[in-house]
Amino acid sequence: MIIVPEKDIADLMTREAAFAAVEQVFAAMASGDAYNFPVVREAIGHADALYGFKGGFDRLGGVLGLKAGGYWPHNLETHGIINHQSTVFLFDPDTGRVAAMVGGNLLTALRTAAASSVSIRHLAREDAEVLGMIGAGHQAAFQLRAALEHRSFGKVVGWNYHPEMLPNLEKVAAEAGVAFEAVDLPGMREADVIVTITSSFDATLMAEHVAPGTHVACMGTDTKGKQEVDPALLAAATVFADEIAQSVSIGEAQHAVSAGLISESDIAELGAVINGSHPGRRSDEEITLFDGTGVGLQDLAVAAAVVALARANDTAIEVEV
Amino acid sequence: MIIVPEKDIADLMTREAAFAAVEQVFAAMASGDAYNFPVVREAIGHADALYGFKGGFDRLGGVLGLKAGGYWPHNLETHGIINHQSTVFLFDPDTGRVAAMVGGNLLTALRTAAASSVSIRHLAREDAEVLGMIGAGHQAAFQLRAALEHRSFGKVVGWNYHPEMLPNLEKVAAEAGVAFEAVDLPGMREADVIVTITSSFDATLMAEHVAPGTHVACMGTDTKGKQEVDPALLAAATVFADEIAQSVSIGEAQHAVSAGLISESDIAELGAVINGSHPGRRSDEEITLFDGTGVGLQDLAVAAAVVALARANDTAIEVEV
Repeated sequence: MIIVPEKDIADLMTREAAFAAVEQVFAAMASGDAYNFPVVREAIGHADALYGFKGGFDRLGGVLGLKAGGYWPHNLETHGIINHQSTVFLFDPDTGRVAAMVGGNLLTALRTAAASSVSIRHLAREDAEVLGMIGAGHQAAFQLRAALEHRSFGKVVGWNYHPEMLPNLEKVAAEAGVAFEAVDLPGMREADVIVTITSSFDATLMAEHVAPGTHVACMGTDTKGKQEVDPALLAAATVFADEIAQSVSIGEAQHAVSAGLISESDIAELGAVINGSHPGRRSDEEITLFDGTGVGLQDLAVAAAVVALARANDTAIEVEV
Repeated sequence: MIIVPEKDIADLMTREAAFAAVEQVFAAMASGDAYNFPVVREAIGHADALYGFKGGFDRLGGVLGLKAGGYWPHNLETHGIINHQSTVFLFDPDTGRVAAMVGGNLLTALRTAAASSVSIRHLAREDAEVLGMIGAGHQAAFQLRAALEHRSFGKVVGWNYHPEMLPNLEKVAAEAGVAFEAVDLPGMREADVIVTITSSFDATLMAEHVAPGTHVACMGTDTKGKQEVDPALLAAATVFADEIAQSVSIGEAQHAVSAGLISESDIAELGAVINGSHPGRRSDEEITLFDGTGVGLQDLAVAAAVVALARANDTAIEVEV
């Protein structure tokens, strides 16, 4: 088997490879060639930790396995390591033998950034110029860096509940040679694409903050109760998701569905747009919204890509098991 | 992290260590200090394979993780490796970081054998002399070898649907210096302890084949539809299980419960007997029956024991991740 330790991922993985892996697996999900297993997620009653497994099988890519790990909220203060800890295990789908173990921490950030980028690539207006960011934490920098590569953005407008964190965004924009402006929420009407990446439990971005023709990628809501945007925005938008079942249960769409504003059948898979079985954006006035909940197949796809890169670079650790 | 490959398990692990690990974790389950997570089990639509995850957390033992793998029915014919393939992954419960990877194939056989042995140790009559075996396949040899160590058995009586396989049992009995006799099913009335270990979908051992005072360990039924013994036997017996929820849904008790002969509340945890919170066997005439369905915590417990042995023997492979 192959081991790719966490510390090696940064040197091996690229945003391009993460984008390609996530785009491919979204398409495979929509065509029925890949599916996610039921998610196990447990509050284990120790260290306030949430722990679980997200597994799946991509028949087309030949990728089988799971991401295991979770959230240890006291890691940073107590152990000096990050609170999100995960590891991806890949299995040979022909034999059931373990094939690879890959550090999952940086990969999780990259696959989440890739998901919103795939949605921008396939749903944003070609002439999008202004990118809006709601949220300015650690993950927001990943989302922004990846998003900037998929349209010719000339400006980033950013808002965060804690405005003192906005320099995180400004730094990334500057590195890409793009202007940055801190705005209030109504200032988001200037944006052609908006990415939300917060841990909020209340709507921040309201329908009136979003101009016609905008593409919105909601990337923060992955749990029952979390919420980033106004349910009325989903009612006004054409809604896409990585996985519809997750979107309506733990994703951003949970609120619009429970309010009766939209139903499950109003949501399309982003993969269907990639496949060409859904037309995607139909006009320059349409608001498109991608509900990115995060699925196990994304983790497996980027892990498989890292293993391929490690083999190609001859940096993989091989262990006989 | 520590890696213990499959090929190293046979030299490291002992039946004594497996017994101690399984006994401890059954007790921890009964005291509420350990619990199993929901089981994921998927027919993946490739190679006719069943694949999934059995996870859990033992707070007392500090053991967190999962067994991943499954059943690849064409492995032996196509790849020359065994059809059951599994790997155990242990995590540090204080940080969520992966701590160990352990080959799970031999361990699964040992932990299943240990479970029936723990039930014999705590529920069989002290003066048990004759051990009955229903089933003579690969796993039956493990069950027999382990069972023989927990009472002063003078004789083994064996039955199998394919009698030509009975020499498998005779060989193990001979190694232990114990007489062996092939019997028909009514011949099981001679036994003081009976272990069933088949893949049957119909009852084989009927109530009239079991004498008063016998302890029966049903180890083969782990799926909806499988069945080894007469539901009337469960109605006549005091029933114990590794995990009651599994016993009534996928274990031997599923049939007696759906027939209305017993209810979930009639089943006690074997761990409660180990703990002393259940008296166990109450008379020499009582029939006791253990429904061993197989839980993830057993796998984690024996894997943790192997890791400890590998560390003690300095044979563990350490990989920095």
